[in-house]
Amino acid sequence: MKSRALFSLTALSVFVLSSCATTAPSTSAVTAESTAPNIIFMIGDGMGFEYISAYRYAISELGQDELAPTPFDDLLVGAATTYPDDDTWVTDSAAGATALATGYKSYNGAIGLDTHKNPQQTLMERAREHGWGTGAVVTVQVNHATPASFFTHHPSRSLYNDIADSYATQVTNGGWSYDVLLGGGYSYFHRDDVNWLPQLTEQGMQVITQLDQLDEIQQTPVLGLFAPKALPLAIDTRTDRLADMTQHALRLLDQQSEQNGKPFALMIEGSMIDWCGHANDIACAVHEMADFANAVQVVRDYMANNPNTLLVITADHSTGGLTLGQGGEYAWHTDKVMGIQNSFEVMAGELAKRPRSEWREYLTPVLNLPLTDAQWDSLMAVQLDESVQGRERLYPIHQALLAIVTEHTRTGWTTSGHTAVDVPIMAAGPGADLFGGYMNNTEIAKALLKLVR
Amino acid sequence: MKSRALFSLTALSVFVLSSCATTAPSTSAVTAESTAPNIIFMIGDGMGFEYISAYRYAISELGQDELAPTPFDDLLVGAATTYPDDDTWVTDSAAGATALATGYKSYNGAIGLDTHKNPQQTLMERAREHGWGTGAVVTVQVNHATPASFFTHHPSRSLYNDIADSYATQVTNGGWSYDVLLGGGYSYFHRDDVNWLPQLTEQGMQVITQLDQLDEIQQTPVLGLFAPKALPLAIDTRTDRLADMTQHALRLLDQQSEQNGKPFALMIEGSMIDWCGHANDIACAVHEMADFANAVQVVRDYMANNPNTLLVITADHSTGGLTLGQGGEYAWHTDKVMGIQNSFEVMAGELAKRPRSEWREYLTPVLNLPLTDAQWDSLMAVQLDESVQGRERLYPIHQALLAIVTEHTRTGWTTSGHTAVDVPIMAAGPGADLFGGYMNNTEIAKALLKLVR
Repeated sequence: MKSRALFSLTALSVFVLSSCATTAPSTSAVTAESTAPNIIFMIGDGMGFEYISAYRYAISELGQDELAPTPFDDLLVGAATTYPDDDTWVTDSAAGATALATGYKSYNGAIGLDTHKNPQQTLMERAREHGWGTGAVVTVQVNHATPASFFTHHPSRSLYNDIADSYATQVTNGGWSYDVLLGGGYSYFHRDDVNWLPQLTEQGMQVITQLDQLDEIQQTPVLGLFAPKALPLAIDTRTDRLADMTQHALRLLDQQSEQNGKPFALMIEGSMIDWCGHANDIACAVHEMADFANAVQVVRDYMANNPNTLLVITADHSTGGLTLGQGGEYAWHTDKVMGIQNSFEVMAGELAKRPRSEWREYLTPVLNLPLTDAQWDSLMAVQLDESVQGRERLYPIHQALLAIVTEHTRTGWTTSGHTAVDVPIMAAGPGADLFGGYMNNTEIAKALLKLVR
Repeated sequence: MKSRALFSLTALSVFVLSSCATTAPSTSAVTAESTAPNIIFMIGDGMGFEYISAYRYAISELGQDELAPTPFDDLLVGAATTYPDDDTWVTDSAAGATALATGYKSYNGAIGLDTHKNPQQTLMERAREHGWGTGAVVTVQVNHATPASFFTHHPSRSLYNDIADSYATQVTNGGWSYDVLLGGGYSYFHRDDVNWLPQLTEQGMQVITQLDQLDEIQQTPVLGLFAPKALPLAIDTRTDRLADMTQHALRLLDQQSEQNGKPFALMIEGSMIDWCGHANDIACAVHEMADFANAVQVVRDYMANNPNTLLVITADHSTGGLTLGQGGEYAWHTDKVMGIQNSFEVMAGELAKRPRSEWREYLTPVLNLPLTDAQWDSLMAVQLDESVQGRERLYPIHQALLAIVTEHTRTGWTTSGHTAVDVPIMAAGPGADLFGGYMNNTEIAKALLKLVR
């Protein structure tokens, strides 16, 4: 598997090199007279500055004069605070996304509601009100906190079925809230007691469940539910799944825009950067960053041909307390990070299936690290509680792998949750001058909402 | 002591509020015809993005609609990579400062030399070559890595005496390399075997050793050595010592500039942000940030009256792997951080002087945290090795205090060293448009060097 992971990242590096020069960002102002630009809002869930640094170093080679370029390089304009309207400085993804979608701070868990649980208009709702095309592309279930906050209003992010029902009933009420909605979440739309899919199809929504079916979709609307819940992780599959979905979403929204003369608003989330952060899984995080970077490049290539398009990129918060350096050592070993072939989740699952006698044979080529005898011993000594089910059961293996990867790569983590540190703001295209310096996350949303007219 | 620490930060907050509006930064371009601007280069040693977030939240109040403004807010324009030309991505302060002073990457430990140990012209040397005023203001010894890299060339940062000798012999060779040099380091200029001070004074250098003597200095040149080595930490003394020295440096360089019609270049370092980071001491770090912010405000006030002045702010690296959130909890408790009255260094020193029976009485009002019985027990159980001398001896107390503060404040740290994560770039004034997006730290120096003409 090693050649696969390295190939996709090397290919990306060349890809970026060759295309960056042709897509230098414009930051011209939007005037009252000019046509409102398309808005592409990209959110790296959990993508603090440290994830961008990690990605850049991971695809670069130590000892070379220059680092590998990334599609982020000339886009950074500032940083945003992320705190919620709650009794903490640390936001969750729901309050973070609600702030970015509506311009209102809210409590952790809120989906499109303010602190008083009043629904507030989202960027997508305002876009729809003005006849714009709308859409979202994510790698988790489409009813997860971030996309949900752009299209629905619910008191809790955990109401996954209710959120799926909103996506479906908004359709049955005579108007879809989205033209393109791509991600995972099939199991929430087709539950034991409810199956929205026949009704959606009957009303003209093209519902697909395989990524390659996108090639056949020739017009909006389309609902793509490519996994029961989240898509598999990039490190375990491919680092261009978000980029691929983004390419199709742009093709379809652009075509609709050509037909009706209206701009579109598209939210694209690198959803699982956050999940790798929660798992403290650095190789996983770098691969999710690669897919997000690939999607950014797809957008930049679109902008090169469609200059009346504003791109804004930010994060809802940073996850995991990632730092590149750990335990006093002045080093962060990217070669070792890039040698790891699978997520902790897959490795732990595979180990749990096997007798201990086969662990070394399985793990050696997947982890690609020169484990000491003590490290092998620590892994073999892991106790699994057979009465526990699911991910919880694998937790001790996960922790043992994390300790080993920390020691070898010198990647530091401080939490399984989020942190309060500010996150990057990037912008290019007409209206980009509205973004820069330090901003509150709500100011980003307010600036975007004003551009919809 | 509580009222002192809170007072200085509250005062700062008001100070910033009242003056920000009057000093909105200009970013006009420098043309060939225009007069070269003064260059004020501010370096927060170790000041990653997380330190700015920490400072902003620390002076703000949870539950208020808006955060407290800071002098950094409208200055952020990008981020810089910090990697050295060495076998690691993680720089030390010497290679970091050498890159920022000369535009050349070098090995960790290098002072003004490239990887091949060739001296490279520094920003201050180029400024001097063009007849500009030059200076540096720091809170550590003036012969520490960062200032040394702007004025001298040495194969190792640890050659403190040689670096002091360079500052002195450059004088005896007929020309001072600096007009204003303020910080600590007295003991390196007046050693058992060498005392440079009479000779410097005889040749016209005003040498002072007390901060309040600055009031009496009416013209350049001046060498201020206000401590044997580093100045005491801001949290243990005052949060305006850097700001105070900055005010005087600007007064003297501005006056010289008025007289000779030449611009000046001034490097100002918030040196001990890094030291607090190495100690994983969050209260210490926030107070050093307050002093650095105060100094930034002094510079901004100067710029309001002297618009032909470029301000660039960055960091050489980030230190400690600081994160605002730890151990899975979605919180960072600023009220508890701000209640701490002294540095770990002072607390550990004071505890070591006292019998254990007096520890609780001493520590309760200084730490200001509701310690559990288990936490008191952990502290009382600390073993000191009486055969070890100096700071090393206090290390077990330091670590016990760190564990307690981590638990109460949820501040995360991953290392006693540096990390590879990118650092902020801020800029305002003529030439500020040369800085933005992602830059290599050497590009910052190259842009500054070009402005000296």
